[in-house]
Amino acid sequence: MTKGKVLLAYSGGLDTSCILAWLIEQGYEVQCYMANIGQEEDFEAAREKALKIGATAVYIEDIRPNCLYEGVYLLGTSLARPVIAAKQMEIAKREGCQFVFTVVPLSMLLIQRFKLLLHGEFQNSTTDSKVVVIYLLTPAEKGIPVQQTAAKPWSTDENLYHISYEAGILEDPNVTPPVDMWKLTTNPEKAPDTPEHLAITFKAGIPVKVENLGDGHVETDPLDLFLYLNHLGRKHGVGRVDIVENRFIGIKSRGCYETPGGTILRAAHVDLEGLAMDREARRLRDSLGVRLSEILYNGYWFTAEREIIQAAVTESQKYIDGTVRVKLYKGSVTMEGRTSPNSLYDQDLSSMDIAGGFHPLDSEGFIKIQSIRLKAYTDMKSRLGKN
Amino acid sequence: MTKGKVLLAYSGGLDTSCILAWLIEQGYEVQCYMANIGQEEDFEAAREKALKIGATAVYIEDIRPNCLYEGVYLLGTSLARPVIAAKQMEIAKREGCQFVFTVVPLSMLLIQRFKLLLHGEFQNSTTDSKVVVIYLLTPAEKGIPVQQTAAKPWSTDENLYHISYEAGILEDPNVTPPVDMWKLTTNPEKAPDTPEHLAITFKAGIPVKVENLGDGHVETDPLDLFLYLNHLGRKHGVGRVDIVENRFIGIKSRGCYETPGGTILRAAHVDLEGLAMDREARRLRDSLGVRLSEILYNGYWFTAEREIIQAAVTESQKYIDGTVRVKLYKGSVTMEGRTSPNSLYDQDLSSMDIAGGFHPLDSEGFIKIQSIRLKAYTDMKSRLGKN
Amino acid sequence: MTKGKVLLAYSGGLDTSCILAWLIEQGYEVQCYMANIGQEEDFEAAREKALKIGATAVYIEDIRPNCLYEGVYLLGTSLARPVIAAKQMEIAKREGCQFVFTVVPLSMLLIQRFKLLLHGEFQNSTTDSKVVVIYLLTPAEKGIPVQQTAAKPWSTDENLYHISYEAGILEDPNVTPPVDMWKLTTNPEKAPDTPEHLAITFKAGIPVKVENLGDGHVETDPLDLFLYLNHLGRKHGVGRVDIVENRFIGIKSRGCYETPGGTILRAAHVDLEGLAMDREARRLRDSLGVRLSEILYNGYWFTAEREIIQAAVTESQKYIDGTVRVKLYKGSVTMEGRTSPNSLYDQDLSSMDIAGGFHPLDSEGFIKIQSIRLKAYTDMKSRLGKN
Amino acid sequence: MTKGKVLLAYSGGLDTSCILAWLIEQGYEVQCYMANIGQEEDFEAAREKALKIGATAVYIEDIRPNCLYEGVYLLGTSLARPVIAAKQMEIAKREGCQFVFTVVPLSMLLIQRFKLLLHGEFQNSTTDSKVVVIYLLTPAEKGIPVQQTAAKPWSTDENLYHISYEAGILEDPNVTPPVDMWKLTTNPEKAPDTPEHLAITFKAGIPVKVENLGDGHVETDPLDLFLYLNHLGRKHGVGRVDIVENRFIGIKSRGCYETPGGTILRAAHVDLEGLAMDREARRLRDSLGVRLSEILYNGYWFTAEREIIQAAVTESQKYIDGTVRVKLYKGSVTMEGRTSPNSLYDQDLSSMDIAGGFHPLDSEGFIKIQSIRLKAYTDMKSRLGKN
Repeated sequence: MTKGKVLLAYSGGLDTSCILAWLIEQGYEVQCYMANIGQEEDFEAAREKALKIGATAVYIEDIRPNCLYEGVYLLGTSLARPVIAAKQMEIAKREGCQFVFTVVPLSMLLIQRFKLLLHGEFQNSTTDSKVVVIYLLTPAEKGIPVQQTAAKPWSTDENLYHISYEAGILEDPNVTPPVDMWKLTTNPEKAPDTPEHLAITFKAGIPVKVENLGDGHVETDPLDLFLYLNHLGRKHGVGRVDIVENRFIGIKSRGCYETPGGTILRAAHVDLEGLAMDREARRLRDSLGVRLSEILYNGYWFTAEREIIQAAVTESQKYIDGTVRVKLYKGSVTMEGRTSPNSLYDQDLSSMDIAGGFHPLDSEGFIKIQSIRLKAYTDMKSRLGKN
Repeated sequence: MTKGKVLLAYSGGLDTSCILAWLIEQGYEVQCYMANIGQEEDFEAAREKALKIGATAVYIEDIRPNCLYEGVYLLGTSLARPVIAAKQMEIAKREGCQFVFTVVPLSMLLIQRFKLLLHGEFQNSTTDSKVVVIYLLTPAEKGIPVQQTAAKPWSTDENLYHISYEAGILEDPNVTPPVDMWKLTTNPEKAPDTPEHLAITFKAGIPVKVENLGDGHVETDPLDLFLYLNHLGRKHGVGRVDIVENRFIGIKSRGCYETPGGTILRAAHVDLEGLAMDREARRLRDSLGVRLSEILYNGYWFTAEREIIQAAVTESQKYIDGTVRVKLYKGSVTMEGRTSPNSLYDQDLSSMDIAGGFHPLDSEGFIKIQSIRLKAYTDMKSRLGKN
Repeated sequence: MTKGKVLLAYSGGLDTSCILAWLIEQGYEVQCYMANIGQEEDFEAAREKALKIGATAVYIEDIRPNCLYEGVYLLGTSLARPVIAAKQMEIAKREGCQFVFTVVPLSMLLIQRFKLLLHGEFQNSTTDSKVVVIYLLTPAEKGIPVQQTAAKPWSTDENLYHISYEAGILEDPNVTPPVDMWKLTTNPEKAPDTPEHLAITFKAGIPVKVENLGDGHVETDPLDLFLYLNHLGRKHGVGRVDIVENRFIGIKSRGCYETPGGTILRAAHVDLEGLAMDREARRLRDSLGVRLSEILYNGYWFTAEREIIQAAVTESQKYIDGTVRVKLYKGSVTMEGRTSPNSLYDQDLSSMDIAGGFHPLDSEGFIKIQSIRLKAYTDMKSRLGKN
Repeated sequence: MTKGKVLLAYSGGLDTSCILAWLIEQGYEVQCYMANIGQEEDFEAAREKALKIGATAVYIEDIRPNCLYEGVYLLGTSLARPVIAAKQMEIAKREGCQFVFTVVPLSMLLIQRFKLLLHGEFQNSTTDSKVVVIYLLTPAEKGIPVQQTAAKPWSTDENLYHISYEAGILEDPNVTPPVDMWKLTTNPEKAPDTPEHLAITFKAGIPVKVENLGDGHVETDPLDLFLYLNHLGRKHGVGRVDIVENRFIGIKSRGCYETPGGTILRAAHVDLEGLAMDREARRLRDSLGVRLSEILYNGYWFTAEREIIQAAVTESQKYIDGTVRVKLYKGSVTMEGRTSPNSLYDQDLSSMDIAGGFHPLDSEGFIKIQSIRLKAYTDMKSRLGKN
């Protein structure tokens, strides 16, 4: 008689293997759930490991297509989390689990209808989202194979969009990341001497086509398109970032990231918005986009604020159709031109007729009226002798 | 007997030469004012041209040091304008001019104590800031030498920070800028195969030292430091931008920019803020910075809103001291490390004692309390059958 | 043979009567359009006046129900304008007019497919939205009856929501409005000594029922409900405002307003949001609401920015259901209680079980983690001797 | 030999009396600190009680003048906290205490140089700021006199600015507060039938004079001025609020407040800003003010973000000089007029000369240029058949 059935979000790594063993030891039946979010991983080896430790079932789900989400594709880890969590809930319901156990940001799950297994001993003291076994377990004791990590003194987190590196030698923000750390991109200094030219087409803000203008290769399936951009970004060393960032819990953290395809897409998307998005719409989108990034970064997907902002962001993307030409070269993404059927750019503005366009005198009137407020303020300061 | 003395902001180019001739023809005495804001120009040739057309005096002022302003050095043209205008006012007062005439955004001057000479015929119909002679003047009629422009079918605006290109063939946003257009930077594809490594030191957000980590070259004078970064940025092809932007008057405009030194400084400055600026301070600085950019871009320097934001931005820079190591390579600026005496990054956070630090259980409490609000919302939706 | 057919937005007042006469004089056929937006006006008398001056048709449209719009009902004049304009366009298309003429903020119409008749002589120099006949017309010359205005030395603008007073003796912001100026509300000092108690019910942010808790009177039709609140607001002197505000063109303007029903609704709506809207949703709604008010106040209804914000605001109102009890008394609206089926308020929070609720230790953890960032900043300042 | 000397922030109430007893029992020497922030309290009785329980010293400090702070005087409790905390730190240093103990929001103190005595058992589970003795203490056991609270089934927090009521019968947000709950203001229905007329004068945003226009009474001392406004606000029933608000920890809470003087000052201050503050300055001030309120409400006084915003807010108040006339009547504060030497309001704008003012044609040009962007968007939608 077990204490109940737990669905454990399992990675195949040391941490979740220890948790698996510990949960079984505590008297739970444990089933494992692995999400394929694009990380380079041997899922079958992980399945065998889980079963060997004592899992009664292992579910491996390819949720990469679910991760391709408009407008937010740069926030790799953050965006993957709600998708992973939603799928875990779905499976838990289907399989009749009473509990779920996960190391993704916990707030997401607390708000769900499942009861969360959470025990203080699993709580890491330096991060907000990871769980490690602290108290009595050691991998050796449980017979769990440990990866050799002396050669890679940092930790990583990988998915379809990106990989992040942190901790270990990276903890000193003044240490330059070693050249052999980077995994998803070629060193720009070793990248091809010949640039690559692409055309990326968007429909309502979503990429629908990538064409290699050199060899004519075309991708239109969302997942294939993204994987192809990852391939080209890797080849040309695109998407490396090294920053000191602010974590949700208030600590600063140094992280290095590689986001090859996402970086290309983001640059092209923003460029197209320059052509097809109204100025004031863009100002709104910019400020709402910053807030949305914070929401996702902090794990607040299942919230009222995300729903409200998402409604506005989706509205802002209605007319973002068009094609952007992009050059990749030794780490850089350069815009080379853009067209849009919904362009707001008017080459012939000066030839507009009087009724609809504007006359040379119009800008004089415009400037004078804009100056009324400024003049009142300056006059006031002059009366006070302040200018 | 003239109608009065005008101080004309003179560039030596066609537009202001025509205006000079026209003002004289209208019966004004005209003195010319040229600001050296770092543009590559033959000031003496311009002086001679002005005198030949009929100016009674020409004042050439080196205001480059005044243009080096903390926090806003990327907005080259926008920032130069108030500096140029303020100096013009100063000279006009000193020389007893009754009028000033300028083509920089007019709102700045309207708010000043001088009466502005402005006549509709000088108003260009497609831009908010340029003036051209439309009606009866032609350069040939007035004997003004015209630059050959068939070879350079675009217009430029240059200063210490950057050069901008627009109009002409660039009006089609899908036309890739020709390789020979770019003037201030080497083509990244022709840039050196060997990266350059720098260390840039800031004090209260202001760059105070640049050291070339390869050859040991050091600059500490603000102007020299900036010119040196321009030199290195040029060499490595750093700072090219090609965008469709939104002009103040509501039109979209395609502009290309080169900002070699400014791009390096901006990247290093933002990186240092990651280390030495508090998270919430950074959020404020980010949103205020966007607003400040708009204010400068639109020419609203002499305003209440600029004064208020400047007070906040200056406060935010108080503790931004430190050194950032930067690599330049074929168009890219890459961060390689950063240190700060005011770093808010704590490598040893996990070893903090109980009284001052936090215990593993703390983050459990933190997460549970963060979830109270989320749980209330999700429970409400569940009652409605919405999730 | 006329120059074409114009649809003139006609008020029956002096200004538009002069315009009507002038347009006919200029050779246009003129049809008149009057919108019933709730103003107290003799529409039939206005129709006769228009026909007498020479209009070939007069269309009177009751568009009051169109004006009842969720979330924005306090911005009376601003909101009425796009509704009026949209109906004018509809009629112009239906009646085959080539031109429309209106004095509502012009930007709304310029963006429409109609050609706008606009002539400088009709442009008033002190306001952004009104048009008066300046040059040669006088009412007497055209035989237009003029209202006696010596007794009411200010101008008004009235609709279903409110009336505004400005200009005339109100131009001095230190002049207290005379007691007999106010038209839509009783002087609070003369209002009943007995308060009135109401219950207002909302569904998705929209008022769906008003119940008078004293006499049991109930209204549920949107228009009737609003008219009833106007009646009660008037009776109890609710909704007077006297402010110096900032006009779109940059001048300051002193305006007095009466908004009886709208003031009651707004107070109740905001109160209900306190109970049923999530904290972060509310923060978003607050900042977006301010921006939406600016958009409407300045006449930018038919814009991308309004569409984006509207999407977010609508999303934010999804769950705003419930009933607010309100007391009206001598100019005040006082909340007396509120309930909501979607309340996020949890009276029994302290009795939550451990798994879903929070333990006394949780808030200690919460506070310690919140303090990490603050401690880092204070420690840094201490190192610098700044505190 | 004690464990050390503690400076306890003491209120004389049950909670802090229990804490005092418990700390002594734990082996600490305890000194008590009481801040006079304007609450109606018998400080000498409290002093005797503390000494009787075992405190070795009691310091009573009148910090009311320190609480009078520009721009933020409505956030009574929030603002009093940092002032109280700063004074406690000052006394603790002066008296050589190793520890401080307080129930004001803890984050403020954690960031200070003192070590905080904090023990989980003191943490209340339902609020973020109060501490109660949970485990073994009972008032009776310790011989501490308990106030009879059956007659007042709610808790209060009072200072110079306001009093708050919460908990008890108020926990049901649909319960109307009983008439005898309100302590600082007369019931509006019992307030005088004759209004009171005041003139309030500000200098750089700070109130410097209150004149009763009826009896000529004048106050200019900051504290006296505030106390006088409290007196008048009380008399006329001004400043009652009943809301459901969002607490820092994410729960909703129903609170009732009385803020008599603060409500009058706030209304007059905002009104004066309408006259003397530039439009864009006001927009900035509005959004920064909301953020500042959140910062104060959540107890983040000693933070970088507060310092930055304070710099901007102070800058915004530079020119806010002038006098506002106000009427108090049965719960309402009504503006009756305002003047300012720095007024930005221009009564004679229409008579401005051409060079400095604006011509009727100017607003036509202004509107046409404002419409360029709108026309581009509408044209694009028309091409798509969307309008």
